[in-house]
Amino acid sequence: MKLATLRSGRPDGHLVIVSRDLSRFASAGRIAPSLQAALDEWGRCAPILRAVSDQLNNSEIAGMPFVPDEALAPLPRAYQWIDGSGYMVHLDRVRTLKGSKDTELQDQRPLMYQGGSDSFLSPTASIVVPEDNLAVDFEAEVVVVTSHVPMRATKEDASEAVRLIGICNDVSLRRLVADDLQNGFGFFHAKPATSFGPVFVTPDELGDKWRDNRVHLKVRSHVNSSLYGQPNAGIDMRFDFADLIAEAARTRELGNGTIIGSGTVANAHEEILPIRSNGIGFSCIVEARTMEKIKIGAARTPFLRPGDRVRIEAVDEAGRSMFGAIDQEVVLLSR
Amino acid sequence: MKLATLRSGRPDGHLVIVSRDLSRFASAGRIAPSLQAALDEWGRCAPILRAVSDQLNNSEIAGMPFVPDEALAPLPRAYQWIDGSGYMVHLDRVRTLKGSKDTELQDQRPLMYQGGSDSFLSPTASIVVPEDNLAVDFEAEVVVVTSHVPMRATKEDASEAVRLIGICNDVSLRRLVADDLQNGFGFFHAKPATSFGPVFVTPDELGDKWRDNRVHLKVRSHVNSSLYGQPNAGIDMRFDFADLIAEAARTRELGNGTIIGSGTVANAHEEILPIRSNGIGFSCIVEARTMEKIKIGAARTPFLRPGDRVRIEAVDEAGRSMFGAIDQEVVLLSR
Repeated sequence: MKLATLRSGRPDGHLVIVSRDLSRFASAGRIAPSLQAALDEWGRCAPILRAVSDQLNNSEIAGMPFVPDEALAPLPRAYQWIDGSGYMVHLDRVRTLKGSKDTELQDQRPLMYQGGSDSFLSPTASIVVPEDNLAVDFEAEVVVVTSHVPMRATKEDASEAVRLIGICNDVSLRRLVADDLQNGFGFFHAKPATSFGPVFVTPDELGDKWRDNRVHLKVRSHVNSSLYGQPNAGIDMRFDFADLIAEAARTRELGNGTIIGSGTVANAHEEILPIRSNGIGFSCIVEARTMEKIKIGAARTPFLRPGDRVRIEAVDEAGRSMFGAIDQEVVLLSR
Repeated sequence: MKLATLRSGRPDGHLVIVSRDLSRFASAGRIAPSLQAALDEWGRCAPILRAVSDQLNNSEIAGMPFVPDEALAPLPRAYQWIDGSGYMVHLDRVRTLKGSKDTELQDQRPLMYQGGSDSFLSPTASIVVPEDNLAVDFEAEVVVVTSHVPMRATKEDASEAVRLIGICNDVSLRRLVADDLQNGFGFFHAKPATSFGPVFVTPDELGDKWRDNRVHLKVRSHVNSSLYGQPNAGIDMRFDFADLIAEAARTRELGNGTIIGSGTVANAHEEILPIRSNGIGFSCIVEARTMEKIKIGAARTPFLRPGDRVRIEAVDEAGRSMFGAIDQEVVLLSR
């Protein structure tokens, strides 16, 4: 089933069940007031939500038109957002950045950072930046939402903890990355609010596109009208979601509703922008710039500026959007 | 007023109002189901909570005995926990640690890191560690809970955003600090679940002990039966809470109920452990060890081991406990 949260004037919005084709929704308000509430009582709520989802998909109930502009992030705020680094290709490409570590990449355990989870951006919310020169970048990622995970969970436990799957844009202010990392306390100012696709879905909804703890879908990113990338999230994911969850639980338990990101989706290739319609490309701008430096001696793809739009969705072979689209404009903070 | 959350079988517990002397409580369940819910509607809830608090303190209602063992963290889980570094003395003392940055300390802007907020420890919960050799340390801190804070809030806005004040133990696994910092992504495994004192209080409850955006109380830490420290949180706080809040909001807004930590409370002095009953001492073990290295050539105070207890409270001149006590035992994870 597919779940979304509609704007309601309340911070946690109103939980709805969305049809498989993302065209219609039915309220879940009588089952659980919010997605976090449903996750808190998943054993009770999931079967009822699923029954309504089946009725909606079988047109036994009509539902209402689902308008992504009315959606908040599926979890408008969460108790935990951890971003992993599943794709070594991404790390390889960004490590040349000033301020990033030159030490040998960890290939035994995935890197991860604790992200802010107090106010996520909705799928079509503006990316508001306080200054014009922060080298705004997007990062297209796949995410999972977990149940409670005990400290030192096994990889098998971790795999079974996956409740929901979605996509996010881990907005990054590249000019602040070096400061954050040199301070030694990790990402903070360089990682403002993250945005999420309109729906989170249960693993079964993906069929065989969810296997080996990976999402086997292309994650397609456009900047304005240009295709920037469409790597397959199931390829080159060195650390899968079970690895990421187990690593996150190495010294702590994880609360119900923890969101864990894959890291920027990246497949190995030697392309530069612009890519062909069947190219692979990039899920963030800094990777495209790194490749330009290598191939043509200088970075030429600009970071995002106010007025630029970024669009991210995950699609199957037929081009069907699985989680709906993130579609955001960069806007300068007005004083 | 003083607010606490009692265990109820639900993840967010049951909100109660506690008498000034911490001896009795009255349920706030009919006003707001949880502290986060009260913060979400503070304008509506605060006056009613305060009226009940007045009745309780005036003995117009009897209340029930308040037993800290039945308390969860006042916010058992939160949408954001940011730990600042208000006390430069602490940073000076820990910077000698392997893995910490040798670069000149930032004295223009406070350092801060994003902490996990999905499952806080209650005041008397065991500190469960997965291995015996992780160099477990406590960090005694003062915290504030904020209302919504807009991006680029002024210091004045930040000051007015303080809703509640409390104490925490920012448990640290020192052996993992170097790994976390060398990875470049910041604290993660070295900072497992944080614990909080039994009550959060409104600023007015502190009277003139809350001024200049600082808490002018001694933060007293014992390990087992030994006094390890009692620095005054109002002294040597280079960056006050308004500074910390404004800094946190530099590139993002902060959600309602964001918790911001002062950093380990530290006053300048030249003592080593054991301290006299009127000594200043330390709010974490690593500072005591650093001072021992300087003064006697070797660190001798051990980190915490399973079976050790740490007790933290903030007291006024008369020794009255303002927020109740954090009193925890270190326990090895059982498999």
